[in-house]
Amino acid sequence: MSDKIYSYQQLYQFALHVFKTMGCSEADAILATDVLLSADLRGIDSHGIARLVGYVRLWEVGRINPTPNIQIVHETPSTAVVDGDKGLGLVVAPRAMQIAMEKAKQVGTGWVSVKNSNHFGIAGYHAMMALSQDMIGMAMTNASALVAPTYSAEKLLGTNPIAVAVPAGNQAPFVADFATTTAANGKLEIAQRNNAPIPTGWAQDAQGNPTTDAAILKKGGALLPLGSEKEQGSHKGYALGSIVDIFSGVLSGASFGPWAPPFPAYVAMPENMPGEGLGHFVGAMRIDAFRPAKDFKDNMDKWLNRFRTATPIEGKDQVYVAGDLERIMEAARKKEGIPLVMEVVKDLEALSSKMNIPL
Amino acid sequence: MSDKIYSYQQLYQFALHVFKTMGCSEADAILATDVLLSADLRGIDSHGIARLVGYVRLWEVGRINPTPNIQIVHETPSTAVVDGDKGLGLVVAPRAMQIAMEKAKQVGTGWVSVKNSNHFGIAGYHAMMALSQDMIGMAMTNASALVAPTYSAEKLLGTNPIAVAVPAGNQAPFVADFATTTAANGKLEIAQRNNAPIPTGWAQDAQGNPTTDAAILKKGGALLPLGSEKEQGSHKGYALGSIVDIFSGVLSGASFGPWAPPFPAYVAMPENMPGEGLGHFVGAMRIDAFRPAKDFKDNMDKWLNRFRTATPIEGKDQVYVAGDLERIMEAARKKEGIPLVMEVVKDLEALSSKMNIPL
Repeated sequence: MSDKIYSYQQLYQFALHVFKTMGCSEADAILATDVLLSADLRGIDSHGIARLVGYVRLWEVGRINPTPNIQIVHETPSTAVVDGDKGLGLVVAPRAMQIAMEKAKQVGTGWVSVKNSNHFGIAGYHAMMALSQDMIGMAMTNASALVAPTYSAEKLLGTNPIAVAVPAGNQAPFVADFATTTAANGKLEIAQRNNAPIPTGWAQDAQGNPTTDAAILKKGGALLPLGSEKEQGSHKGYALGSIVDIFSGVLSGASFGPWAPPFPAYVAMPENMPGEGLGHFVGAMRIDAFRPAKDFKDNMDKWLNRFRTATPIEGKDQVYVAGDLERIMEAARKKEGIPLVMEVVKDLEALSSKMNIPL
Repeated sequence: MSDKIYSYQQLYQFALHVFKTMGCSEADAILATDVLLSADLRGIDSHGIARLVGYVRLWEVGRINPTPNIQIVHETPSTAVVDGDKGLGLVVAPRAMQIAMEKAKQVGTGWVSVKNSNHFGIAGYHAMMALSQDMIGMAMTNASALVAPTYSAEKLLGTNPIAVAVPAGNQAPFVADFATTTAANGKLEIAQRNNAPIPTGWAQDAQGNPTTDAAILKKGGALLPLGSEKEQGSHKGYALGSIVDIFSGVLSGASFGPWAPPFPAYVAMPENMPGEGLGHFVGAMRIDAFRPAKDFKDNMDKWLNRFRTATPIEGKDQVYVAGDLERIMEAARKKEGIPLVMEVVKDLEALSSKMNIPL
């Protein structure tokens, strides 16, 4: 099925209208739209406008509060815990990052753990907020459990992404943003749509055996941590996903592990949740809290240039640095528009009818 | 070839004597020995007493200063850059961690980037220093380039490990400590000794093709980032290794990327190094800078217990949490002694003769 192409502005106006209809303030609706569509621009289609219907459903069942009282509930000069008051993660996370950056301005670094939030879009957006302030930005979040730890038949972790953004001088910045699994769930969904098998190493079946079945999650299967198998280091990806869960969930007082709240509104909330809502962890480090900004940027340029000009293996044009492909995609999509698969188009059209908002 | 077993005390006295003979102060020699042998106890044999000969050789060629003036050269309330003055990383890193913890006591967290250092043993030791202070500890280091980024024919990164230690209440703590590659170089060395092939996904040959040749690094090959291949997420492992290099090297003013100083003393230093020596990055976060320590520990216990009691896949006894296997190994080796392969025994015996120190 072929894609339909929308301009950024078209999708922007639609999402903005939807968030305002949900009851968000003008400022919050703009922020949420900006965060949401940054995913589509950067080619992370699973986390962009395709999720808008999901946010609306969460709002409909009362799991998203469109007018949250986002507040600091505990703090020190370099840390805070923020209660998101069930707000959109798209709004709560940037506020938390703002607090982290304020603290970094004062004492060099700022670290904010967030509870009582919801899905926050792409981690990279929040980390990149630091770049214009000459700070290194970090963002991570826990998520509902789709991932089996090494040797586990049970799903205990989310895809728990980590983003780190590092400013540079003349070179484009370093922006890592990745799930701590071998492959994101969105890639399995694409394979399902195409009736294609998935590579081994992405998932296991309900008994923990390797599988190439793209629909295996619906049959009790699980995603695998980065590394795929123990012999290829899956215990390291499992450790990374664990760190994200602990920093985002345990440190803030959010729920965690298999008790992290699910994104689909039709999935019941876990019983006996040990904390409140979803958790995030964001941080900012002023580069001049370590060395003069110019010295850092000169060396960072040298680093970036060396990696970008490395000799590629045969059959590849060049070696990329984290964030390069997303930046190339963003430039293209700003110009040429954002292609959406027909399932997403249908979802948005249904939403358009239901909420009486032109698409 | 069978191993020879030494008691912890026997190896401890030998290493202590060696470090003192190198000119280290009593306190520094004790610290270096403690850090070095923590690797042997925890089963990370590649980073323990097997490296003692290597440290001595670096000292012999003047690349290790046994009486360094370790000092803070830049700081803010939550950050510092430490100049290791070419000291043993085994001594410099714990000092840096101490500074990070002091800052955490004052403002909630402390983050120290280190330049002009050398190999620091296992990252886990430094991260675990935080546990007794009810802090989360982190440690990472760059290292000489053995790893090819995704699509690169060149080796540009070290195995760049990350350690994160998280305190708990009644449960044993979470201690992640892992190279950001699929497999550590030590595992290739073991395969070489046994004339065994290595699994695919660990390394590539000089042209970037998959290989099972355990000696491939000597033939222009490279280790692969965690994830092995692009399709299995190697760009994520590459991003992680990059983050470690940037935080340890670029942020401190140490050397970085392909210019990181090599560990073997017979390998010439890279030309036009962009910074001073090897770099580390350590950090500490007070758990009560986020929420009351008891609340955190209660939830952390719940987290750890849930993962440790998860249903394992068939053929496996249980699901482990990061650090569990190392803790089990430590208990066993404290009781039963530390087995060393004959190559290492011969190295230590030669060192014993040369320095006239009884083994």
